[in-house]
Amino acid sequence: METLSTNQAHGGVQGVYRHESRATGTPMTFSVYVPPHAEGARLPVLWYLSGLTCTHANVTDKGEYRRACAEHGVIFVAPGTSPRGEGVADDDAYDFGQGAGFYVDATQAPWAAHFAMRSYIEEELSALVAAEFPADMDRQGITGHSMGGHGALTIALRNPARFRSVSAFAPIVAPALVPWGEKALGGYLGQDRAAWARYDACALIGSGARVDELLVDIGDADQFMAEQLRPELLEAACAAAGIPLTLRRQPGYDHSYYFISTFMTDHVAWHAERLKA
Amino acid sequence: METLSTNQAHGGVQGVYRHESRATGTPMTFSVYVPPHAEGARLPVLWYLSGLTCTHANVTDKGEYRRACAEHGVIFVAPGTSPRGEGVADDDAYDFGQGAGFYVDATQAPWAAHFAMRSYIEEELSALVAAEFPADMDRQGITGHSMGGHGALTIALRNPARFRSVSAFAPIVAPALVPWGEKALGGYLGQDRAAWARYDACALIGSGARVDELLVDIGDADQFMAEQLRPELLEAACAAAGIPLTLRRQPGYDHSYYFISTFMTDHVAWHAERLKA
Repeated sequence: METLSTNQAHGGVQGVYRHESRATGTPMTFSVYVPPHAEGARLPVLWYLSGLTCTHANVTDKGEYRRACAEHGVIFVAPGTSPRGEGVADDDAYDFGQGAGFYVDATQAPWAAHFAMRSYIEEELSALVAAEFPADMDRQGITGHSMGGHGALTIALRNPARFRSVSAFAPIVAPALVPWGEKALGGYLGQDRAAWARYDACALIGSGARVDELLVDIGDADQFMAEQLRPELLEAACAAAGIPLTLRRQPGYDHSYYFISTFMTDHVAWHAERLKA
Repeated sequence: METLSTNQAHGGVQGVYRHESRATGTPMTFSVYVPPHAEGARLPVLWYLSGLTCTHANVTDKGEYRRACAEHGVIFVAPGTSPRGEGVADDDAYDFGQGAGFYVDATQAPWAAHFAMRSYIEEELSALVAAEFPADMDRQGITGHSMGGHGALTIALRNPARFRSVSAFAPIVAPALVPWGEKALGGYLGQDRAAWARYDACALIGSGARVDELLVDIGDADQFMAEQLRPELLEAACAAAGIPLTLRRQPGYDHSYYFISTFMTDHVAWHAERLKA
């Protein structure tokens, strides 16, 4: 692991790191904020998965999470959203290919060669964080935005023992039923929709996957709500499954980092309460 | 004035605006955050002047001021740092020309044609903000970073009746005595150093300019401290003039927005206390 930068911030250290990923076969860049802590302490970890087009840098610059993470003593990990670079398959669209990994392990050519964001997040980066930072991997939470909200929900639903807490900002909750998801899952996994179900939060819940509870914020002025996000499908799935869902439709907010940063403090505190219980 | 974007954030509205400036003879872009407020209320205004290479966008993205401004009911205005665009003189260096207006009215060719950031901030943008936003112009404070800290200090020292409060992050305090300032003031104002004094905080204080008090934060790991910032010169000038200066050397912090965003909440609160007294 190579350190690209470290800067003191809110009493802790915001770092940006790069490593050669076995999962993706490319260099991958991610950021980690380690709050101030006692020598030798192991701290809970909050994962944040980003949305379409983003790198680790968007939330690192605009997420306004460091103050709350310092207050609560939580490590914040922000991975990239896909393999990138020359030699990696790409697409001209913003919602497919580089910057749009959708947290799946692709099975279709040419994507299968590098697009393994599920394995990257679930296994490889998790092991690296455990080895390199003062992280207590028995206390992990996960959140994310939009495509990254989809990532957070599906990863938590597939790994309920690993995550004590899961939340999302304006997540894609049913990718198999919306244009972004149909394009991505079809492209990465092929047209057999049976293969999509493990990457669809509502489908996972429908087939028995469970988490203890969910916190979801979405702006009621979110331009992607009706066509791509469809929070009512998550409400229905959680209601049918008996999963306690706190879904807050925030009046006036859109899909941007202005929305995310407004509610980030709430989410960090919510996770901290569960991770430190 | 043209609205480029508005986004709800922390209960208020973060806007980005553009107008044709008479002072610079170019379009100028700036951002304004208006916190939640009662209908008809007029709110105090905090100006933030940015550093070398920046536009309004750096602090708007990374400054972490909105939460505190919402809490305290303070409007936050972030202007650009120079005229920009085709037809505007420029220099290849990062510390001169476009992005490096140094908050002066240039007198030397070719800079005098457009580089009038003093008039732009002191007069034109101030009038525009008063006309277009729910601002109480009897309650203004000013702050800034690095070159913008120089701007904040010098503008406040020349206009003590206009600003009730002034602070700075890692400011250039004596441009006439440091490389960045010698290059900029020499280039924009010519080699007669008598013309520089009105743009040098320590020189202004030495010749009798006064503010009620000053708050300055600087990181003790700031890579520009010894050569460019020289806070000890401000300490000496304030001590000789009897200006109460709170100068905090923050251990471990550098010159970046990680430093600024860490102490932004403190500065907003400090200004709010004085603006709302």
